[in-house]
Amino acid sequence: MRTNPERRTALTDAAVDVLADEGARGLTFRAVDTRAQVPAGTTSNYFRTRDELLVAVGAHVFTRLAPDPATVHSALSHRRDHALLGQFLRDIVDRATADQAAHLALLELRLESTRKPALAATFTATMVDALRANVAFHLDAGLPGDEESVELLYATTTGLIIEHLTLPEFFSRARVDRLIARLVSTME
Amino acid sequence: MRTNPERRTALTDAAVDVLADEGARGLTFRAVDTRAQVPAGTTSNYFRTRDELLVAVGAHVFTRLAPDPATVHSALSHRRDHALLGQFLRDIVDRATADQAAHLALLELRLESTRKPALAATFTATMVDALRANVAFHLDAGLPGDEESVELLYATTTGLIIEHLTLPEFFSRARVDRLIARLVSTME
Repeated sequence: MRTNPERRTALTDAAVDVLADEGARGLTFRAVDTRAQVPAGTTSNYFRTRDELLVAVGAHVFTRLAPDPATVHSALSHRRDHALLGQFLRDIVDRATADQAAHLALLELRLESTRKPALAATFTATMVDALRANVAFHLDAGLPGDEESVELLYATTTGLIIEHLTLPEFFSRARVDRLIARLVSTME
Repeated sequence: MRTNPERRTALTDAAVDVLADEGARGLTFRAVDTRAQVPAGTTSNYFRTRDELLVAVGAHVFTRLAPDPATVHSALSHRRDHALLGQFLRDIVDRATADQAAHLALLELRLESTRKPALAATFTATMVDALRANVAFHLDAGLPGDEESVELLYATTTGLIIEHLTLPEFFSRARVDRLIARLVSTME
């Protein structure tokens, strides 16, 4: 196995693009080599199996979609009220829209998880950790709402992003923002 | 083009199974012929193009996931309150869980829509009609909430079903039902 971290990241980024453009079935070592413009066989030097590549993509898309810590830190200097909560949710949608390939790859991984129990297990662990971190952040920051509210915000944001990214003429960004405001207003 | 409606439906059902099991890239006329256990070439006698088949699947999954009109009619004899609204939403999740292949096919069609503008246009029209019908049903029945509430319920249900179907260990049915109850309680 090769271990150059930059090369490994570049291959994982290429795998994200292949998943978004071609779907899970299009994800082969050869397709990733081509997309990354590296010699044939390179991807198989970095990932033992296709499943190992899928798991790496699952971890990597979270990094790509994560907020800039400095932005979050600066936002927390504002009043931790409904307006700030709405802004955080719109920021999540902004990042998914700006990096559509990462979010579509995430959806492909979800679907692939229904077919591959080993991927489902790893991916479930990643999602459990991510939601737990969300809940901890929300409660620590003293934003409006309890643990269950955060779960509801999470599930609704999943739905809104999927509607907006896959059928933007159906769920416009204006509609997404309106529904975020509506949901946030119910948080106590 | 052949026009035996039962055969056409059987082929569309087979296409749903292929989409759910193999993903969009796996959907070929040949794969549908095999899944439907019909002679090679049958599917191409019923659908001119793969896009025409995708559009037929898009319409058909809505039929498969639709509620039984008699059940809805009988439910409407109860008080049209928050409890009944919660029941309707849990029924939607029940149907998606009972016919997982139909809902996963819907997700594959969403992803395929990001790659095929013609499919996106038809599929958007179907979704707009379906949401409009939902809103009309909700308001006519006098269930709690206004038009925007229905849109919020719809988006959240999308998120909950996708979480539950693709990562059931992450979003258990109990968690889904808890979040439905929480959201419904905010409807005025």
